Amino acid sequence: MTQESRPTLGVGMVGYSFMGRAHSHAWRNVGAFFDLPYTPAMVALAGRSRDQVVAAADRLGWRSAETDWRELIRRDDVDVVDICTPGDTHAEIAIAALEAGKHVLCEKPLANTVEEAAAMAEAAERARANGVRSMVGFSYRRVPALALARKLVADGRLGAIRHVRAQYLQDWIVDPDFPLVWRLDKDKAGSGALGDIGAHIIDAAQFVTGERILGVSALMETFVRERPLAEASTGLSAASTGDPGRGEVTVDDAALFIGRMSGGAVASFEATRFANGRKNALRLEINGSAGSLAFDLESMNELFFYDGTEGSEAAGFRRILVTEPAHPYAGAWWPPGHLLGYEHTFTHEVRDFLDAIGTDTDPSPSFADGLRVQEVLDAVTRSADRNGTWTTVGGPRTTPET
Amino acid sequence: MTQESRPTLGVGMVGYSFMGRAHSHAWRNVGAFFDLPYTPAMVALAGRSRDQVVAAADRLGWRSAETDWRELIRRDDVDVVDICTPGDTHAEIAIAALEAGKHVLCEKPLANTVEEAAAMAEAAERARANGVRSMVGFSYRRVPALALARKLVADGRLGAIRHVRAQYLQDWIVDPDFPLVWRLDKDKAGSGALGDIGAHIIDAAQFVTGERILGVSALMETFVRERPLAEASTGLSAASTGDPGRGEVTVDDAALFIGRMSGGAVASFEATRFANGRKNALRLEINGSAGSLAFDLESMNELFFYDGTEGSEAAGFRRILVTEPAHPYAGAWWPPGHLLGYEHTFTHEVRDFLDAIGTDTDPSPSFADGLRVQEVLDAVTRSADRNGTWTTVGGPRTTPET
Amino acid sequence: MTQESRPTLGVGMVGYSFMGRAHSHAWRNVGAFFDLPYTPAMVALAGRSRDQVVAAADRLGWRSAETDWRELIRRDDVDVVDICTPGDTHAEIAIAALEAGKHVLCEKPLANTVEEAAAMAEAAERARANGVRSMVGFSYRRVPALALARKLVADGRLGAIRHVRAQYLQDWIVDPDFPLVWRLDKDKAGSGALGDIGAHIIDAAQFVTGERILGVSALMETFVRERPLAEASTGLSAASTGDPGRGEVTVDDAALFIGRMSGGAVASFEATRFANGRKNALRLEINGSAGSLAFDLESMNELFFYDGTEGSEAAGFRRILVTEPAHPYAGAWWPPGHLLGYEHTFTHEVRDFLDAIGTDTDPSPSFADGLRVQEVLDAVTRSADRNGTWTTVGGPRTTPET
Amino acid sequence: MTQESRPTLGVGMVGYSFMGRAHSHAWRNVGAFFDLPYTPAMVALAGRSRDQVVAAADRLGWRSAETDWRELIRRDDVDVVDICTPGDTHAEIAIAALEAGKHVLCEKPLANTVEEAAAMAEAAERARANGVRSMVGFSYRRVPALALARKLVADGRLGAIRHVRAQYLQDWIVDPDFPLVWRLDKDKAGSGALGDIGAHIIDAAQFVTGERILGVSALMETFVRERPLAEASTGLSAASTGDPGRGEVTVDDAALFIGRMSGGAVASFEATRFANGRKNALRLEINGSAGSLAFDLESMNELFFYDGTEGSEAAGFRRILVTEPAHPYAGAWWPPGHLLGYEHTFTHEVRDFLDAIGTDTDPSPSFADGLRVQEVLDAVTRSADRNGTWTTVGGPRTTPET
Repeated sequence: MTQESRPTLGVGMVGYSFMGRAHSHAWRNVGAFFDLPYTPAMVALAGRSRDQVVAAADRLGWRSAETDWRELIRRDDVDVVDICTPGDTHAEIAIAALEAGKHVLCEKPLANTVEEAAAMAEAAERARANGVRSMVGFSYRRVPALALARKLVADGRLGAIRHVRAQYLQDWIVDPDFPLVWRLDKDKAGSGALGDIGAHIIDAAQFVTGERILGVSALMETFVRERPLAEASTGLSAASTGDPGRGEVTVDDAALFIGRMSGGAVASFEATRFANGRKNALRLEINGSAGSLAFDLESMNELFFYDGTEGSEAAGFRRILVTEPAHPYAGAWWPPGHLLGYEHTFTHEVRDFLDAIGTDTDPSPSFADGLRVQEVLDAVTRSADRNGTWTTVGGPRTTPET
Repeated sequence: MTQESRPTLGVGMVGYSFMGRAHSHAWRNVGAFFDLPYTPAMVALAGRSRDQVVAAADRLGWRSAETDWRELIRRDDVDVVDICTPGDTHAEIAIAALEAGKHVLCEKPLANTVEEAAAMAEAAERARANGVRSMVGFSYRRVPALALARKLVADGRLGAIRHVRAQYLQDWIVDPDFPLVWRLDKDKAGSGALGDIGAHIIDAAQFVTGERILGVSALMETFVRERPLAEASTGLSAASTGDPGRGEVTVDDAALFIGRMSGGAVASFEATRFANGRKNALRLEINGSAGSLAFDLESMNELFFYDGTEGSEAAGFRRILVTEPAHPYAGAWWPPGHLLGYEHTFTHEVRDFLDAIGTDTDPSPSFADGLRVQEVLDAVTRSADRNGTWTTVGGPRTTPET
Repeated sequence: MTQESRPTLGVGMVGYSFMGRAHSHAWRNVGAFFDLPYTPAMVALAGRSRDQVVAAADRLGWRSAETDWRELIRRDDVDVVDICTPGDTHAEIAIAALEAGKHVLCEKPLANTVEEAAAMAEAAERARANGVRSMVGFSYRRVPALALARKLVADGRLGAIRHVRAQYLQDWIVDPDFPLVWRLDKDKAGSGALGDIGAHIIDAAQFVTGERILGVSALMETFVRERPLAEASTGLSAASTGDPGRGEVTVDDAALFIGRMSGGAVASFEATRFANGRKNALRLEINGSAGSLAFDLESMNELFFYDGTEGSEAAGFRRILVTEPAHPYAGAWWPPGHLLGYEHTFTHEVRDFLDAIGTDTDPSPSFADGLRVQEVLDAVTRSADRNGTWTTVGGPRTTPET
Repeated sequence: MTQESRPTLGVGMVGYSFMGRAHSHAWRNVGAFFDLPYTPAMVALAGRSRDQVVAAADRLGWRSAETDWRELIRRDDVDVVDICTPGDTHAEIAIAALEAGKHVLCEKPLANTVEEAAAMAEAAERARANGVRSMVGFSYRRVPALALARKLVADGRLGAIRHVRAQYLQDWIVDPDFPLVWRLDKDKAGSGALGDIGAHIIDAAQFVTGERILGVSALMETFVRERPLAEASTGLSAASTGDPGRGEVTVDDAALFIGRMSGGAVASFEATRFANGRKNALRLEINGSAGSLAFDLESMNELFFYDGTEGSEAAGFRRILVTEPAHPYAGAWWPPGHLLGYEHTFTHEVRDFLDAIGTDTDPSPSFADGLRVQEVLDAVTRSADRNGTWTTVGGPRTTPET
């Protein structure tokens, strides 16, 4: 299909902070690298402050701006709603958009609570009957190295999975004077390291192995319990200004848990914002009866693979530079050895979303997948609240378990 | 300056293959991440085949297409000419554009011969008097890690430079049945690994050290001297189809040379397309009296730095993840630890070019810098032709030297 | 003190398998590299089979052989007893030796149960009053990189410890046909991966941080529950011969736990023999408020250190090659950059033990330290038996905890 | 053969500095790990100063001491002479020992000049007729990873060799106040970095590829031309004391050369003592038509291998941890994953030397191999003296070449 003959699909986005910038970049560039069933049109951007949303729309390439997301959903020229706001607003926007017949791409975590996530998954299921598609933005599934990891597992190169070892290590709040941004506020963010980055490793572990986390023993910790207030801080980039007083940190700085996977593997997870010197180290290591994999997002173009079926003379973890035409997504970009970066994952995400819409298939990860992650987050929180007691994922949530 | 109030600068580009795609991406996105003195407008794309250039313009975001670069230069709405064609056409296009008063960004190597490069540098110097800017596209200067490397050297963190060790290792023609693409044709490409990738390490070594290569002893080799013809092959991605006969490879597969730098360092260089398993390994290692640096483009977000002034108890090469706000370019993109990729270097390049135009300053690297690299390439070729005889860079080119 | 004028100290060793070979090497070589208060004399080796023990003594450099360890303890020319037998025999031999006034070096884990370990620690305490020294063989404390890690923490370079991340990953029984060697037999070995290699990371974590593990949530798993019997297998090197039937694996293949340290850090531990491709990966990563450390025994000459107090421009994990004269132990061996291997840790261990005897000071780790590790192993086992319930280290062991 | 029934072979060693310590360790321990045709007896150590040689013999395990190496050669109980002195004395001692019917192990480089080396190779050839064995101590051939590298090349896993890239980088004289030790004195050492460490990479490149270096273009540099005198300095460990005046450095600090191998490969070599932060980085990288290898002595238990015949999906450089029973030498030591260190190479060397004596076969590398390395060193020096002119290895040495 030539580009000219492709129908246009109108996209409206809510939010224009960190995630909004990343999603805008994806919508702006996907057509230059991938053959698509639709030409995405960046129709409108929604945000509360008129001045700011207009400036953002101009800078990021959106044709118009709205100050109320409800207006954006009402527009006829908007076919897809892309939600890039904090987690406490996801459910309301997503459900409204789905009910209005808009395809929805929603940032992760799907919601701040299991209840919201369940309602969203149900709304998605209802909309699906009408051909409306929905997808949750666990963008790391589209890191070529992790997509390759999934393929190697699915191809049986690892055999039976024995171990999952997942960590997401950052350090951006190690300074006790870093301000109290919205990500440290439970009402906005739902949880701290757990929901923000722990959600990513939960999804990645389940995605790559194709297995579910069945139950967990967890502990959570807040190392710095009070921080300077940050009146106008937004996102990750807040800077402390003057002394606006101090406030309580209401989320976890770190969450650790061990668990069991549906295929018999044992697993270990850790999410923290206090790993000094680790900037964005999403690490995943998987050991199987036939081989192993290791990945670190700080070297995101590399996948390490051990083939345990080789003779030991020449066996070893191979550093696969995941930039070959044979690799997921990579062939659309540059010649082998030319690295991709962080934002490419979003380009891959919107490409796959457009493909699913075009082929009338279910995109992945679905809202149901998002709910599943939310249930794990919930089990972790409940286990930590009860001093590490084993907690079944998706199990009853009001009575103690043994 | 708000985006709306910025004047527009019309850009016209010639060529739309590998480099054209990369430059288009840069023009398309630079405004979303950087504050610029101008809003670049992607006015026109030039190429010989109408169908292909129109399709490319549509896909890459150019508003119109031209089938003759002379027409593109004639257009009033084109203020900047961006040259992304093979090296044998650079001189003619660039000189014409400069004489027409257009700012010129020209891909590397500047030209295929010293004579052409010298004529281009002279044209640039004449145009400069009229406020016309020119720049040669050694984009790797804009890899944040290499820009940081330059800064650390300039700040004296390495002391006196003793050693430069530079390699550019690829393997895309290791298969003897890989076809005879234009990059293997001396008439089009000027030279093989030497001009294509050797030029990059020559520029990088001179850029990071701030020193010049004075003289060299060289050898060059063509391992596979005949290859299948590739009638319609373009760029790196050619695939052998049927058996169209075989033709002679007229360029080098590998070039090695040792030399001396203007500051007293000794240096070793190697460029090859036969380093099996190395996909895009531009490696630069510099040892100084006070410290050392090491870099590999296959891990382009990392710079390794050794501070020799520390006590030995805790000294060691540090892996600096060059994604901090304190690092060149990085702060404009994502939070720390979120990687940049190959094409970001071009975005940085056009940003710096626009900045130079906006501030009426000379962009770097200049055509004179491009000439300097060409002189090194020429000295390497002459030394290799004379069995490794020491050859002064920029020296007399017709009589033997000792 | 010149070598000739040093008094001699007679050493008797029990056991001559894997650990016996390593300890023999240490006794044989320590005097050639270190200045010692005593010249150790390798007086006698004890083992049950006369033929085997005589051959081993000859090969390993022991002057005589005994077939009963009680005889060895009785000998007047034996001043030090070095215990290299499986864990179920440690208590009896060590207590007898201490009561006979012999200095005792006992391999880890100190014992198979807390009761035995406690009895040994008491015996050591009694003997100490008479100037008799005892030490448990957590030899990895003498890896120069881990000794340097301890020094950096003690010097405050890490600040307050926030995270401990410890793994000991091996893969030698990943093949389900690997035979049922003594290390897979609970009666001999006490536990599986937990006591064998988990003990090492427990000790290493407590040693490097200077903190204690307070409590844990744990899970353990045996992936392969039945294996071929190995009639005459010894140690790690057993090979399956014919089909001698199958037997039950009575120990854990993998043990995972999370916990809290006495200084406020949270910690994660994993010991497994099923990490395909990981041969001997004892990994320790520690994050503090001022810096971080990372170590992997598969690269045992390297310590990675992040100094969080540096400006971010040049900050990064440094690879310290721990072979400098400024580093623990390293100066006694070779020039910088010349690597040490596995057995050097035992040489350092006996050197420090001899030093402690010579200076009438307490060697470290003491039997009390060994008991402390045993208490953690016990808490892990109890937590795992109770489905991950939080379990205090050293707490009451018969009633359930909350 | 049981140890008791093995005949004894008397060993006498000359020199007891750095190399002497390493060789002593090998003789002392080889029997505990390897089955040997002979039991080596450490009969006598020779050195000029009686006090020092007696103390060294005592410390290193030699039964007696001699102050004249001629006496040592005369002894009936000495069957093997091991030469660990500076290069200017090798020829005299080795030839005398060979003529006295002693097997000779001689440290590298074989000699300080081609003439001496040639005389030694001739003496070795004459002695060989009488069953007398000789070997030159290029010990790095016995690093298991390099022995494995040789095997992979010999097995055809790399195909036709295209590139050799060899570096030996150290930094121990980067401080201009490091004193003028014997290794910086041309009369004693023959040359500087070139003969000391360049010899190692020349031998390693020829050994692993099985090819010869045919010719070279070279340059050499002495960065610091004057240093404090070090009256009593010995070996690498000299320390500047007071101000004993300054003297001229008469050897190279760094040597670089490019060349061609007998099988058609091109090669690059660099040896330097001024690579700040590189402590002992002997690096060898080899690219062939079918695969590649990479090695760094600072991680000496690892070999990186790229198998270019695999499909690109899972291809990548494998980190082979060369500690498996399937690997050269490794099985004699510890279980997989337990690292070997620097001195193990010497243990392997004397083991292979004893094996060759026991089986009446020629040990390798022979004195002829040592001569071949000396000829390369000589060609490098001559090329550098003539400003990089191409110089054939083993070619005429008095007339200029073209």
